[in-house]
Amino acid sequence: MELEFIDWLRERLPPHRLLRLGIGDDAAVLDLAGSPQCAITVDTLTDGVDFVLAQVDPRIVGRKALAANLSDLAAMAARPLAAVVSLVLPKENAFSIAQGLYEGMIPLAEKYDLALAGGDTNAWDGPLAVTVTLLGAVGPRGPLRRGGARPGDKILVTGSLGGSILQRHFTFEPRVAEAMTLSERYDLHAGMDISDGLSLDLSRLAKESGCGAVVDLSAVPISEDAETLARRSPDGPSALEHALGDGEDFELILAVAPQEAERMMAERPIETPLTVIGEFVADKGLWTKGENDSLRPLEPRGWRHG
Amino acid sequence: MELEFIDWLRERLPPHRLLRLGIGDDAAVLDLAGSPQCAITVDTLTDGVDFVLAQVDPRIVGRKALAANLSDLAAMAARPLAAVVSLVLPKENAFSIAQGLYEGMIPLAEKYDLALAGGDTNAWDGPLAVTVTLLGAVGPRGPLRRGGARPGDKILVTGSLGGSILQRHFTFEPRVAEAMTLSERYDLHAGMDISDGLSLDLSRLAKESGCGAVVDLSAVPISEDAETLARRSPDGPSALEHALGDGEDFELILAVAPQEAERMMAERPIETPLTVIGEFVADKGLWTKGENDSLRPLEPRGWRHG
Repeated sequence: MELEFIDWLRERLPPHRLLRLGIGDDAAVLDLAGSPQCAITVDTLTDGVDFVLAQVDPRIVGRKALAANLSDLAAMAARPLAAVVSLVLPKENAFSIAQGLYEGMIPLAEKYDLALAGGDTNAWDGPLAVTVTLLGAVGPRGPLRRGGARPGDKILVTGSLGGSILQRHFTFEPRVAEAMTLSERYDLHAGMDISDGLSLDLSRLAKESGCGAVVDLSAVPISEDAETLARRSPDGPSALEHALGDGEDFELILAVAPQEAERMMAERPIETPLTVIGEFVADKGLWTKGENDSLRPLEPRGWRHG
Repeated sequence: MELEFIDWLRERLPPHRLLRLGIGDDAAVLDLAGSPQCAITVDTLTDGVDFVLAQVDPRIVGRKALAANLSDLAAMAARPLAAVVSLVLPKENAFSIAQGLYEGMIPLAEKYDLALAGGDTNAWDGPLAVTVTLLGAVGPRGPLRRGGARPGDKILVTGSLGGSILQRHFTFEPRVAEAMTLSERYDLHAGMDISDGLSLDLSRLAKESGCGAVVDLSAVPISEDAETLARRSPDGPSALEHALGDGEDFELILAVAPQEAERMMAERPIETPLTVIGEFVADKGLWTKGENDSLRPLEPRGWRHG
C-alpha cells in the first residue's frame, strides 16, 4: 500500500514555508536559515502501552503522537518547526489507519505552524508503532534545561495534575505557547514536562540540577480527573497520590528565583493556571515538610519505561 | 531499564561539535548555523522484514539502520549532520539489544562525522523496531532530486547490483562520499538510491521526471552475489534478473547529460565503479531495446513495501 498511500499523502499534507521539498523524494528539505540552534526530539508511541488501537480512533493516536513530542519541545521552550513521521502499521487496515494517524496530526501541525515533512511507512505482522521526530527553534535565551535549578528557587507547575488516564492523556494541549511566553518574559532557571509523574519527574530535574526539592503537598494542584479516580476506588490511591504519581500530565515544571516567581504569579502572563508547589533546596532528594518544618523524604513515584 | 540505559548511553556516545546539548534533557540541541538547508529523512527497520533478530547480532542491525538512512542522504547528495534514534525493544534482553544497536551505529557515525544525539527508548511485548532520523546539509548545488532527468540523459549506476540478501544488505557502504564528490564536480540532473530494486527505482525516477528510461541489459553491472544466487537456483531468477529486481543494493542511480557523463567516465572521480546502463527518453515507461533498436517494455520489479 505504500505508493498508494504516498500519493494520498502528497495531496493531503498542507504546504509550509519551511518545506522546500516535501514528500516523494529520498528526503525532505527544510529551510532552517532562521533557526541556527535547533532542538530535536523523537518519541515512539506503541499499541498496548501508549494507546490501545482496538479501543481508539487512529486520529486520536496520531494527535497524541505529535502532541507528546510538542510537549518535549515546550519543555525546552523551543518553537516548533517541522516533523517527520515513521509508521509501522499492522497489515490489516494499514491504509485507513495511516490516513487516520495523519488526519489526527494535521490540525495540530497547523495550529502550531509546523511543517509535516512526511517520512516512512511500513507494514508488518506486529502491532502499531508511531514515531514522530520534531525539530524546534531554540529561543534567544537558549534552551530551557533540566539542570539549572538552584537552592531557593521556587517550584512552579502549570495546570492541574493526575488522572490523565481518564481522557486527558489523549486530549491534552502541549504547553508550547506557555513555555515560549514564560521563557521570553521571565528568567527560568530550569524546566521539563511532566510525562512520567510529578514526583518522579521533579526528582529527575532536581537530580540533574544537583539539588533537592521540597514539595508543599497542600499546594499541589489536583485535577478533577484525579478526584474522580480517587472517588471511584476508595481503597486505591488518593487524589493527591494520583497527582504526584500519575504519568502523562504533559504540564510543565519550572524552577524560578523567588522574586521572579512572585512577579510571575502577580502578572499572570498565561491563562493556564500557574502554581507554586514548593522550592528547591541544597539537600539532595525529594522531600515534604513535616513537623517544625523538618524535611521528610517523599518517594518519587511514576511511570518507569520498560 | 530506561534510566540505566540512558546513563550508559550518556557515557558511551562520542561528543560532537554540532551537539550543543546531548542526552539527558527533554530534547537534544544542534548547532545548524552552517546548514541553512537541511535534508531530513526517517526510516524504521523492523524484525522479520529488514533483519531477523534471532539470526543476527544487534550491532549489525544498528549499523544497517543508520547506513540505510545515510543512503537516503547520499541520494540527496547531502552531508550527514546528526541523527536521533528511537528504539522499540522486546522486553527480553532489552538492555543488551539496545547497547548492541548503538555499538553498531557509533563507528558509522564517527566515520561519517555525524552527531548521534540520542533519542527515545521503549520496551514492549512486540518485536524490535529501530527508527533513525537523519539530518544532512544540502550542498551548494541544492538537493539532488528524483525529478530532474531529461530525455537524452545517460543513466549511471554506482557499484554492482543484485543478491544483496546474501550479506551486502548488512555490510554495504552508503554512497555518501561518492554522491558529494559527484555532485560537487558534475552537473547531476537527478539521482536516487536503489533500495527496492534497480528496475523499480529507476521507473520511479523516470516517472518523477516525466520521462521514460531505456536500459541496456548487457550493460547492467551484476554483482558476484547475484551470480552466486543464480548458480544456486538454476530454475530461479537469472543473475541479471537479480540485478534488476533485488532490493537493498543501496547504490546510486544518476541522470547526467551525455557530454557530462562522458567527462565523468573519463575522469573516474570516485573509486566505486560507475557504469552507464542506458538513457532517459521521452516515451514514458521502462524499456529495453529490441531488434532494430525498437523499444520493448521492461517490467519494473522489486520490493514493494507493505
